[in-house]
Amino acid sequence: MRAVTFQAPGQVRVEEKPDPEVSAADQAVVQVEASGICGSDLHIFHGRVPVEPGFTIGHEFVGTVLAAGPDVERVAVGDRVLGCFHTACATCVPCLRGDYHRCDNGQTFGHGAHLGDLQGAQAEQLLVPRANLTLRRVPDGMSDEVALFAGDVMGTGYHAVAHAGMRSGDTVAVLGLGPVGLCAVQAALAGGATEVFAIDSVTQRLAMAGEFGATPIHLTEEEPKRVVRAATEKRGVDVVVDAVGDPGPLAMAVSLARDAGTVSGIGAYAGKGEVPLGLAWLKGLTLRLGLANVIAHVDRVLALIEAGKLDPSPLVTHHMKLDEAAEAYELYDQREALKIVLTP
Amino acid sequence: MRAVTFQAPGQVRVEEKPDPEVSAADQAVVQVEASGICGSDLHIFHGRVPVEPGFTIGHEFVGTVLAAGPDVERVAVGDRVLGCFHTACATCVPCLRGDYHRCDNGQTFGHGAHLGDLQGAQAEQLLVPRANLTLRRVPDGMSDEVALFAGDVMGTGYHAVAHAGMRSGDTVAVLGLGPVGLCAVQAALAGGATEVFAIDSVTQRLAMAGEFGATPIHLTEEEPKRVVRAATEKRGVDVVVDAVGDPGPLAMAVSLARDAGTVSGIGAYAGKGEVPLGLAWLKGLTLRLGLANVIAHVDRVLALIEAGKLDPSPLVTHHMKLDEAAEAYELYDQREALKIVLTP
Amino acid sequence: MRAVTFQAPGQVRVEEKPDPEVSAADQAVVQVEASGICGSDLHIFHGRVPVEPGFTIGHEFVGTVLAAGPDVERVAVGDRVLGCFHTACATCVPCLRGDYHRCDNGQTFGHGAHLGDLQGAQAEQLLVPRANLTLRRVPDGMSDEVALFAGDVMGTGYHAVAHAGMRSGDTVAVLGLGPVGLCAVQAALAGGATEVFAIDSVTQRLAMAGEFGATPIHLTEEEPKRVVRAATEKRGVDVVVDAVGDPGPLAMAVSLARDAGTVSGIGAYAGKGEVPLGLAWLKGLTLRLGLANVIAHVDRVLALIEAGKLDPSPLVTHHMKLDEAAEAYELYDQREALKIVLTP
Amino acid sequence: MRAVTFQAPGQVRVEEKPDPEVSAADQAVVQVEASGICGSDLHIFHGRVPVEPGFTIGHEFVGTVLAAGPDVERVAVGDRVLGCFHTACATCVPCLRGDYHRCDNGQTFGHGAHLGDLQGAQAEQLLVPRANLTLRRVPDGMSDEVALFAGDVMGTGYHAVAHAGMRSGDTVAVLGLGPVGLCAVQAALAGGATEVFAIDSVTQRLAMAGEFGATPIHLTEEEPKRVVRAATEKRGVDVVVDAVGDPGPLAMAVSLARDAGTVSGIGAYAGKGEVPLGLAWLKGLTLRLGLANVIAHVDRVLALIEAGKLDPSPLVTHHMKLDEAAEAYELYDQREALKIVLTP
Repeated sequence: MRAVTFQAPGQVRVEEKPDPEVSAADQAVVQVEASGICGSDLHIFHGRVPVEPGFTIGHEFVGTVLAAGPDVERVAVGDRVLGCFHTACATCVPCLRGDYHRCDNGQTFGHGAHLGDLQGAQAEQLLVPRANLTLRRVPDGMSDEVALFAGDVMGTGYHAVAHAGMRSGDTVAVLGLGPVGLCAVQAALAGGATEVFAIDSVTQRLAMAGEFGATPIHLTEEEPKRVVRAATEKRGVDVVVDAVGDPGPLAMAVSLARDAGTVSGIGAYAGKGEVPLGLAWLKGLTLRLGLANVIAHVDRVLALIEAGKLDPSPLVTHHMKLDEAAEAYELYDQREALKIVLTP
Repeated sequence: MRAVTFQAPGQVRVEEKPDPEVSAADQAVVQVEASGICGSDLHIFHGRVPVEPGFTIGHEFVGTVLAAGPDVERVAVGDRVLGCFHTACATCVPCLRGDYHRCDNGQTFGHGAHLGDLQGAQAEQLLVPRANLTLRRVPDGMSDEVALFAGDVMGTGYHAVAHAGMRSGDTVAVLGLGPVGLCAVQAALAGGATEVFAIDSVTQRLAMAGEFGATPIHLTEEEPKRVVRAATEKRGVDVVVDAVGDPGPLAMAVSLARDAGTVSGIGAYAGKGEVPLGLAWLKGLTLRLGLANVIAHVDRVLALIEAGKLDPSPLVTHHMKLDEAAEAYELYDQREALKIVLTP
Repeated sequence: MRAVTFQAPGQVRVEEKPDPEVSAADQAVVQVEASGICGSDLHIFHGRVPVEPGFTIGHEFVGTVLAAGPDVERVAVGDRVLGCFHTACATCVPCLRGDYHRCDNGQTFGHGAHLGDLQGAQAEQLLVPRANLTLRRVPDGMSDEVALFAGDVMGTGYHAVAHAGMRSGDTVAVLGLGPVGLCAVQAALAGGATEVFAIDSVTQRLAMAGEFGATPIHLTEEEPKRVVRAATEKRGVDVVVDAVGDPGPLAMAVSLARDAGTVSGIGAYAGKGEVPLGLAWLKGLTLRLGLANVIAHVDRVLALIEAGKLDPSPLVTHHMKLDEAAEAYELYDQREALKIVLTP
Repeated sequence: MRAVTFQAPGQVRVEEKPDPEVSAADQAVVQVEASGICGSDLHIFHGRVPVEPGFTIGHEFVGTVLAAGPDVERVAVGDRVLGCFHTACATCVPCLRGDYHRCDNGQTFGHGAHLGDLQGAQAEQLLVPRANLTLRRVPDGMSDEVALFAGDVMGTGYHAVAHAGMRSGDTVAVLGLGPVGLCAVQAALAGGATEVFAIDSVTQRLAMAGEFGATPIHLTEEEPKRVVRAATEKRGVDVVVDAVGDPGPLAMAVSLARDAGTVSGIGAYAGKGEVPLGLAWLKGLTLRLGLANVIAHVDRVLALIEAGKLDPSPLVTHHMKLDEAAEAYELYDQREALKIVLTP
């Protein structure tokens, strides 16, 4: 089969690889019909996340079950399925507490030996361990390119607001309108946010957030803190989603939150960062950081998409062929595409 | 001023009464511009809830602040305001835990000496104790008849789903499509319910629930349990709202809930009732019973109405004059009106 | 191997059976060194819970791992282990939500075909499916007879107060001082209950609860409601654990709870029951019913026992040999023993 | 009356002041029988928290009600009472959500005009606004010096673990064994922590934590991270309480927490600080920062002290007279006393 492999920083290549085979009772093999390129793939592309040369990358996928071990019960051969971006053992201490994203034995698709040595989804076929946990049937009538959001980007947007304890009737601000931020905007509105302030400096992204129902705020041409305070009787919002991930936005997030509010840091932080701890302490904030727990959310996210309450389709800006992966990565790296869907 | 008073079972009368006056620092007097007749007023009308003859009844209102004591800070004289159906002291043990509906010193408007000896809102003027807790400014552009839902019926619908811990992406069933049930349908959808099954035997109410976005199920012409199970992979729904209040519907509620789901009993139960405890135990259900905590919810409910996510206006089926109160109660007693709004 | 089997109502027999063998990657075989007789075994003994003649019964055990499939990671051959009373698949919808006790594919040890066709623990050897989820290493220095409580009776006592949301500083009442009730008394005190009212009519059980630190109340010689109200400024307690399971105690539980309090119905209800719904509604109570989710609790329960904060050893009133099972069941049926531990 | 007043950085003085008088319906005047000097008083003493010269300081107190307005219901003239360190209006938006510590109209005793212009408790008499919210009767048999902890330092220790969502059976680490840290150690153990690691560099404080039941770890002579990991199967603890407040300890707190654990930052942070955001994000931590919500906790804290589950008495290292306030502040500033109690 053909597969997109990492070769060196800035270089990916489509290579021929052997077809995967089921080797354990709870595994499945999926014929991939669509895969996505995600912001975290760029970390690999640039060599910031180390992956072995020749390793197949990609972690968003939709396809059809080709083969399944005897313990696979939630999906069957021939089912059209989507997957989560990682697997979990479901039995370790973190999993038992529902923290599947912190599984002791978790494996992330397409992230090299360091994250579980599990080949990626930008390929014609994919081996899926723990298929009961990771795969879901695609509801009838849902397109491939929509379904592949459920187990990754939209699951992350949902997590950003759900993990923050957002309640129906709350106000929200979202910093950073990449795919995750835009999905968080939708998730907040679907869950009853009465006003969502969407902050970025890219006009098209602001416009898209506005079409979703948010109040767009230009990061530099407007003063986000002033706008938010004016609209909230000077209180700030109940929940701030930081979908950027640098310390800078975190400082703004702290400034936008109401007293005793919550900042949901879903954007990947790295290293150390200077944080306005004094202000955060004075306000009595809660900061919830980390990767999304998409396995815990995927059923609800799928139901929301099926009900039309979440709709990632406007985020799909480009369709390309698997064989065009090299061009696709170049394009995505220029930050002009929101989501590129690859098909065989 | 004129006021609607209870006289005897089946008999209310508009009487002249002295204008109320502010006698404590945290009281306000409101010129009532619209008041509602509510299902619980019928309990008084029929003598099931004992109220002294001559007592002014009614507990839903919108109006303008005529006078306010020096401690009243959240509203000012001249403000257009709405109120909650009861007051609370905000400092007793239940209030400190946020259980304002169980306040040791709470007073309910228009429910006689037994519930705090606080004259009612179906009058030209109303004395409001603890005005900081009970009154809210009506947002610009919101009509009287919509605003008066926030502190009573819509607050109750919101409570029914929020108190049940409903999450965005959940499924819900609502039993009984009176005003509270219909508001619960809206609140569930606003908070992210992906499917709401609305169950009643009155065709118009089913149709209205359908227009709100619910899946109507006729109580007797269909089989609710079968319909719900077929639509939920035989699981049942995450949350059942029982907005009726007899043991019969509670039994159906237990049958519709999924394993480890929640039944929210918002309809007033009385006396003892036979409950399918064995089934509830086997399913591992949580039952949350009791009156709504509208003071805790009123700010979020108002924001949701203002944002257009909740809209009680279709429930207002009749407008009548305060002087027509006797006819209005007769009409409401025939269960043909959903909400009658009285204006001076 | 020898195993205690159900034969007919009132009749159990020790029989010779083939040794169990590992037949799946996540299974283990345990050499049982101690097993317990539990109140729910009496339901089988009396034929109220149907079990096939010849089926091995029992679901509380401690022993040593004899064999383990390749996927068994949390325990190893030679480890001294204890088990939970049931298994779960960890991947179905209820399991993904952490409701392991409502698993779609759960199996309960020693409860016949109806509850998963899993042979019981009152035997020399035991086949344990899903061993990663069900088995735990016994901490050094913990005796067999103490460890076997963690996965069943003490896990249930812990669940009764944790599932009710008891907080450090709360007051609690426990109705019914069988093993589960006595464990709930300990769990409440360990978690910070400031006063636990322990209610029963058996003098020795009241005395034992008193030794644990509870305030004993004789069910008939005292008036529980009056005693509890007098000690709680007439409020009632924050949490009531009903460890009996008939509608009668549930009515008392409702009467003992404070406004907006919680009743935790851990005792098995069956059929229908008359419940004081009016009072429960007026008080705004939450009722949490159902079997305990011991798999979710077993690690914390073990840690609490190891730390000396829970100590079930006083509940072990009798030690008998596996071969004396028939006499043991007779004895237990007379309700004189709290816990009988069987050893090979 | 005599009162301890701030004069200039490093200088406090006992002055004669007029007796306070009740001027609103919900106020009380308390004859102070004991007051405490607290770590936050040192911020005033050093001029870091600006207070007007001549302002009476102090915010921990026990005494007897001398006078009370007509709305004061929870205490009466002649009652022996303790107080919380601040008041709240109970009706603003934060208060309605239970966030009394973030009250829009809150006043802190003895912190100058900036924090509400409310004279302090290190005096013979004290005016207490919102007395229903702030005052509690001292349970019979509880000494003054113990009771005054409930509304400040012990309330803060309780908050540190409760706000972090600590559950019975969890493990905890406490950084910084000043009075708040030592109280957090007690609160964690009272609530069911199975092991509490108490970290500091002062031998006596470590010894005291050990006597309370904690595992003391010397900050510099041992390696806290290594000790904690070795004792927790390399996972880290469920909850870390940072009772110091500089970014340094926060970095250690992050390193000690388990994946998906919680860091409770109760020590006052100021300005900006460098935080290991990358590690916190990778672990998926929750950080809960800010002042304690003691009004929400005081009833449970008092009940725990009364039940003997919390006992701050070992923290009282010095008793001095009000007239010796200047010496007392000098002494406290040398960090040798844990708690100095002043009596008239």
